[in-house]
Amino acid sequence: MSDFKSDLVENARAVDEVLDQLLSVDDSPEAGLVEAMRYSALGGGKRVRPFLVVSSARLFNVAESCALRVAAAVEMVHCYSLIHDDLPAMDNDDLRRGQPTCHIKFDEATAILAGDALLTRAFEVLVGEATHSDPKVRCDLVSEMAKSIGVGGMVGGQVLDLMAENKELTIPEITRLQRLKTGMLIGYSCECGAILGKAPLAARQALHAYAHDVGLAFQIVDDLLDVEGDAETVGKSTQKDGAAGKATFVSLLGVERARAQADMLADQASAHLELFKEKADPLRELARFVVNRRA
Amino acid sequence: MSDFKSDLVENARAVDEVLDQLLSVDDSPEAGLVEAMRYSALGGGKRVRPFLVVSSARLFNVAESCALRVAAAVEMVHCYSLIHDDLPAMDNDDLRRGQPTCHIKFDEATAILAGDALLTRAFEVLVGEATHSDPKVRCDLVSEMAKSIGVGGMVGGQVLDLMAENKELTIPEITRLQRLKTGMLIGYSCECGAILGKAPLAARQALHAYAHDVGLAFQIVDDLLDVEGDAETVGKSTQKDGAAGKATFVSLLGVERARAQADMLADQASAHLELFKEKADPLRELARFVVNRRA
Repeated sequence: MSDFKSDLVENARAVDEVLDQLLSVDDSPEAGLVEAMRYSALGGGKRVRPFLVVSSARLFNVAESCALRVAAAVEMVHCYSLIHDDLPAMDNDDLRRGQPTCHIKFDEATAILAGDALLTRAFEVLVGEATHSDPKVRCDLVSEMAKSIGVGGMVGGQVLDLMAENKELTIPEITRLQRLKTGMLIGYSCECGAILGKAPLAARQALHAYAHDVGLAFQIVDDLLDVEGDAETVGKSTQKDGAAGKATFVSLLGVERARAQADMLADQASAHLELFKEKADPLRELARFVVNRRA
Repeated sequence: MSDFKSDLVENARAVDEVLDQLLSVDDSPEAGLVEAMRYSALGGGKRVRPFLVVSSARLFNVAESCALRVAAAVEMVHCYSLIHDDLPAMDNDDLRRGQPTCHIKFDEATAILAGDALLTRAFEVLVGEATHSDPKVRCDLVSEMAKSIGVGGMVGGQVLDLMAENKELTIPEITRLQRLKTGMLIGYSCECGAILGKAPLAARQALHAYAHDVGLAFQIVDDLLDVEGDAETVGKSTQKDGAAGKATFVSLLGVERARAQADMLADQASAHLELFKEKADPLRELARFVVNRRA
């Protein structure tokens, strides 16, 4: 395993440990819901967003325990969005990370509530004193998170995605859809390191630019995997976009140009990090990993 | 109209004005979702929780504009919970406040996302600078809200409620279920006035005790209305608990004793407010209103 790959695995392990603590089960009858939350939040995954949080926080020498709490909160939000997206009324997916989705494993009511509870718990973790000693920083973490995942962010992107079925979207429209649906939370994952580290504006803007490019590259590769991958390797249903009549980067650009575009974005993303010198190498390797992944 | 009734109506109008501003529609394609959020959040209702927020904040001379933002956030959370509770996978209700429920008026996917977005927006409003100048206070508002509505609060209560169908619950079990499902958010509505006003512990404990009794009285009267009321007056489907085989305060205590219990709780709630003297009269009248309401 390359150094980067083992860093990614080690970071996933560290985040899982924190998630395990933050989603602890007691003996109350309602704690059955926590099983569903844990099933979805601790069900594997590459943990790209937590890696972005921890790596960006290291640029500013943020205490690892603080960064890991924010990383866990970001992963909770990501998992809540997957649970709700997979519901029958939404994308109706049975498979996620190679396992039955939450509403298949449990039931629909439990899946809805597990998503709601993960979102709520994420905000509770962000605002907890252990996340940062300065309440102003904790307020910023909550405020920027809410902006990234509300109507002007992730949920808005999901609305656009539902509207996109059997509709001809242009490249600018798909780019905007994906920026809202996945790009804003990826952007938050990078910027929260700067928030935790009270970094100057230039550093924050550099991370924002990096996240923008990485997020788009990530999505283009998702579209490529939907066309080229098989469900077993990818861990979720493939060939779904074509079946749903959804325009994607690949359907509009073709496989070859889409692949070239993703490569270009990864290079461009890395270039934004110049001011951090070699300290940002993990983020550069992550950008490369994102476009080369097979799942 | 009594002075109290006109206060309640005036407060509802003021909260609706703030909700209208906080849920504004722009011309982006995803803003269609905001219509569903507005439909549910601005769809009437007695606005009991916002009244509790504003009345408790007045005890500590909190600026009205700050209290109204928190009141609006509480109402957003309440409405998110109603939207998700009404979904087919949950209580499967078609009628709410005399109107089609969100998933009937729009569709299920929109209802799920509108709930998610209202919850997210509520946290964004709580943490906004306009809510309080002190970031420590804003952190407390977010933290206490999250505790009140997560697994240890509202969502946990909803889990218990789903588990309660066709099950014999005891009075202590129902009391705990209702404390989680509705009591904790009612408690938050009262305590956040003390948080905003940086009130001493004794004041906060008095409001907590008041909220506990009012919340329980509220729920007992809800059960009574489910048995005695008709859908047109109550504004939502009635006779549902019996049909679902749910034990309620009324099925266990009988109508007469349940009514007496609610009356006793309203008196007891008022008694907890002694240290605020006549300044707390609106809260005392609210307790009386809660048990005398017909809808």
